[in-house]
Amino acid sequence: MARRIRIFDTTLRDGEQSPGCSMNLHDKLAVAEQLEKLGVDIIEAGFAISSPGDFQAVQAIARTVKNCTVASLARSLEKDIDCAWNAVKDAANPRIHLFLATSPIHMEYKLRKTPDEVYEQAVKMVKYARNLCGDIEFSCEDASRSDPAFLYRILEGVIAAGASTVNIPDTVGYAVPDEFSQMIKGIKNNVPNIDKAVISVHCHNDLGLAVANSLAAAMAGADQIECTLNGIGERAGNAALEEIVMNMYTRQEFYQMTTGINTNQIYPASRRLIQATGVKCQPNKAVVGENAFAHESGIHQHGVLANRATYEVMTPESVGVPHNKMVLGKHSGRHAFEERLFYLGYHVDEEKLNALFEEFKVLADKKKTVSDKDIEALVTGTRGIIPETYTLDRFVINSGSSITSTSAVRLISKDGIALEKVAIGDGPIDASFNAIDKIVRMDTTLEDFTLSTVDGGTDAQGEAYVRISRDGRSYNGMGVSTDIVEAGVKAYISAINAMIYETTNHNS
Amino acid sequence: MARRIRIFDTTLRDGEQSPGCSMNLHDKLAVAEQLEKLGVDIIEAGFAISSPGDFQAVQAIARTVKNCTVASLARSLEKDIDCAWNAVKDAANPRIHLFLATSPIHMEYKLRKTPDEVYEQAVKMVKYARNLCGDIEFSCEDASRSDPAFLYRILEGVIAAGASTVNIPDTVGYAVPDEFSQMIKGIKNNVPNIDKAVISVHCHNDLGLAVANSLAAAMAGADQIECTLNGIGERAGNAALEEIVMNMYTRQEFYQMTTGINTNQIYPASRRLIQATGVKCQPNKAVVGENAFAHESGIHQHGVLANRATYEVMTPESVGVPHNKMVLGKHSGRHAFEERLFYLGYHVDEEKLNALFEEFKVLADKKKTVSDKDIEALVTGTRGIIPETYTLDRFVINSGSSITSTSAVRLISKDGIALEKVAIGDGPIDASFNAIDKIVRMDTTLEDFTLSTVDGGTDAQGEAYVRISRDGRSYNGMGVSTDIVEAGVKAYISAINAMIYETTNHNS
Repeated sequence: MARRIRIFDTTLRDGEQSPGCSMNLHDKLAVAEQLEKLGVDIIEAGFAISSPGDFQAVQAIARTVKNCTVASLARSLEKDIDCAWNAVKDAANPRIHLFLATSPIHMEYKLRKTPDEVYEQAVKMVKYARNLCGDIEFSCEDASRSDPAFLYRILEGVIAAGASTVNIPDTVGYAVPDEFSQMIKGIKNNVPNIDKAVISVHCHNDLGLAVANSLAAAMAGADQIECTLNGIGERAGNAALEEIVMNMYTRQEFYQMTTGINTNQIYPASRRLIQATGVKCQPNKAVVGENAFAHESGIHQHGVLANRATYEVMTPESVGVPHNKMVLGKHSGRHAFEERLFYLGYHVDEEKLNALFEEFKVLADKKKTVSDKDIEALVTGTRGIIPETYTLDRFVINSGSSITSTSAVRLISKDGIALEKVAIGDGPIDASFNAIDKIVRMDTTLEDFTLSTVDGGTDAQGEAYVRISRDGRSYNGMGVSTDIVEAGVKAYISAINAMIYETTNHNS
Repeated sequence: MARRIRIFDTTLRDGEQSPGCSMNLHDKLAVAEQLEKLGVDIIEAGFAISSPGDFQAVQAIARTVKNCTVASLARSLEKDIDCAWNAVKDAANPRIHLFLATSPIHMEYKLRKTPDEVYEQAVKMVKYARNLCGDIEFSCEDASRSDPAFLYRILEGVIAAGASTVNIPDTVGYAVPDEFSQMIKGIKNNVPNIDKAVISVHCHNDLGLAVANSLAAAMAGADQIECTLNGIGERAGNAALEEIVMNMYTRQEFYQMTTGINTNQIYPASRRLIQATGVKCQPNKAVVGENAFAHESGIHQHGVLANRATYEVMTPESVGVPHNKMVLGKHSGRHAFEERLFYLGYHVDEEKLNALFEEFKVLADKKKTVSDKDIEALVTGTRGIIPETYTLDRFVINSGSSITSTSAVRLISKDGIALEKVAIGDGPIDASFNAIDKIVRMDTTLEDFTLSTVDGGTDAQGEAYVRISRDGRSYNGMGVSTDIVEAGVKAYISAINAMIYETTNHNS
């Protein structure tokens, strides 16, 4: 009998708080919906007290998601707990996730409290939270560097106070599997009321062992694993959800564990996160990387042709990687295009379909063949849900290595007014961004700009990501075009639209 | 007493054969030199028989590197072994690395041989190789899915035939630590002459466990670990050298192992590889990723300020990440610039220093502050060693969303002749590449183009990577400029120069 392990996804909390991974409300909701489809048990939607934007996102997710528990993180303080509860209380299954550090170094230098004080605060705050919410998780921050005897004591206390899940994080990514496994066994054997709570683990990847530690802990008796899509998270990231799940799935006879994850939703969820953050996986990322199923060497290719299992322990299809290589082109009809969209996991309404098909025809005129990646870029490059305060009408650039670059950009505002400005800059993209700044007149900082071709070939589409910031908050934009300068301009406008949408409609 | 583990680096073989990671001779030599500085014990320089380019690279590395053993891979065939020996024989310490598959699925479907036939071939070929070379390694391909009894038999045979290292690869990334550790213990206990050979392991990361499996095997008695920089390699890659080494270093009291690695050369080696391939690590890559030492959340920042060890198990300095944040600008002198270069690990001659300082001054005029990353981009963006058949004189582009893009590019050939062409294209970059193609008149395919800003800000430098291919071989180019279109144009020219250099001077 396979044991059922709960998957606690913290992509939107621990993942989102890593540099470059901040998401706007719209993208957070889209990722949460994808997590629900994926079948995670718990979505940690944010850290409600950390900012008004976080509160709002947790609340929106709590009100939207129906089939997962929705949690908010909170320090072990009344104001944090109140705020977390206000954010999650409308969820079908709300959870408050409290934490307090238990390691000597954290207690001494960060909290400046004695172990007794920490114990009392933890128990008191769990009781306080339990009066608000029926599902309380308590985390011993930096557990892997904590004194086991103190851990046993505080765990017994918080479980008696009402915590139904106790989390053992390897906060700094310091643990090794054998040792971490012993720690879980120690907890099972030494905490008298441990059977009244679910043991959870939360591992960081600083030494490259987050997945191995999580699995070792599960083998030792942990029933919940905290992880993120693509392994994003603070520093070297968290344990990667897709790797944990595919271990259990591929090596079922070894682990004897199962999860509620629909593995064929793994790749779409990973892609959706990349679209939301602009942070790509390296090509050799396990399970979801571009090369994860690529066989380059002749010997490997020969083997795979003879029998896929010679070099493949899992199939691309099992994690939802599209494999149909039927080529679309300028002669492909609307039906074929619609079928491919459906196949790629996009369910769009009639209006959106029409708009996408128009874009597809334009692209097919420019490119001999339109690949799955091209289509994916088309769909995600047009973010229909964020209202477009500004749309690009046209631009003209003049540039060169020994002349001053100029760009004249004409945008149409949502009231239908055409606004045109010209600017100089360091190259045509910089000049275009400057011209847009003159039109929009908002004081933003360009934080990041990346651009890559979607597929090879001179007629490849360019996919641009822009991250801008204003008043300490970041906004992402994405643009796609066969002209990569145009892709950059579109991405910049899309980031500005996201910023305007977030700050005017959803500020709090 | 810490046990000394040998580090066998296969970045230039298993790493280089992964999609997008192919390197030219110049870059391979540069990476090999970096590996020597890093202190790896063995450099697997290539798979000599796989292509003339591979043979040439193995030979050049064998003739250059003095302090590491240099190995070439070979199938267990006489022609492969002869070729490998010819490539490595000039090395100070040459090694031939033979392999043959031992798993039922590989023997049946790929080799179409019985276990007895495989046994005989392995023993015969190890003897053959041992007559040429004093240092023979034998790998049982797909060992983790092989029958242990057959493994014991073949290992005993090849050791008796002269193999001094026997490698147990987890070729398909299927192993889990406990099981893999048992396999190594089984080999130690059941192969009678195992004390005459070093046990090596070679793990792939398909399930995210390559590092954990390698370390578990070392704890069980393996004395050599095969790994790559940044974990590059087929599919999900190989075990990452930097993660393995930093486990042993950070958790010395647990592992009781040591290596010959100079850990402060890890980051420079990782960077050099990225420059050679254009393949970046994801920001949350352990040890060498951009965020590996970044603390984003307020709580973490507070903790780190109080005591770094609250959230850091190793320091950035220990792996060679530059930490000095002193800012350079237009008023910085030659001496300050030279010092910073030295600090960043670049040792350049007078002529190169002068050229770089000129570029630095130009950049400092355009940017308020010049960061370490900017300087790194400057140094690596000008690849002085590859002769520049063409240099960029100037270009002028004219483009826009509703006009046809044109680019007029003027290059200077190495004979001092100015060549200028104009072309149209899909956007200014495409037009520029087309104009360059008209000048160069070589039939190349653009495989990949990526561009990113080196630092944030509107005055950021753009760093462009281009990969082109011709006759089945790939060539990389890189360009840096505050104008990202110019960065792209420079990268394209640099890729073309690399191609011309490789195909005219070093073809075989």
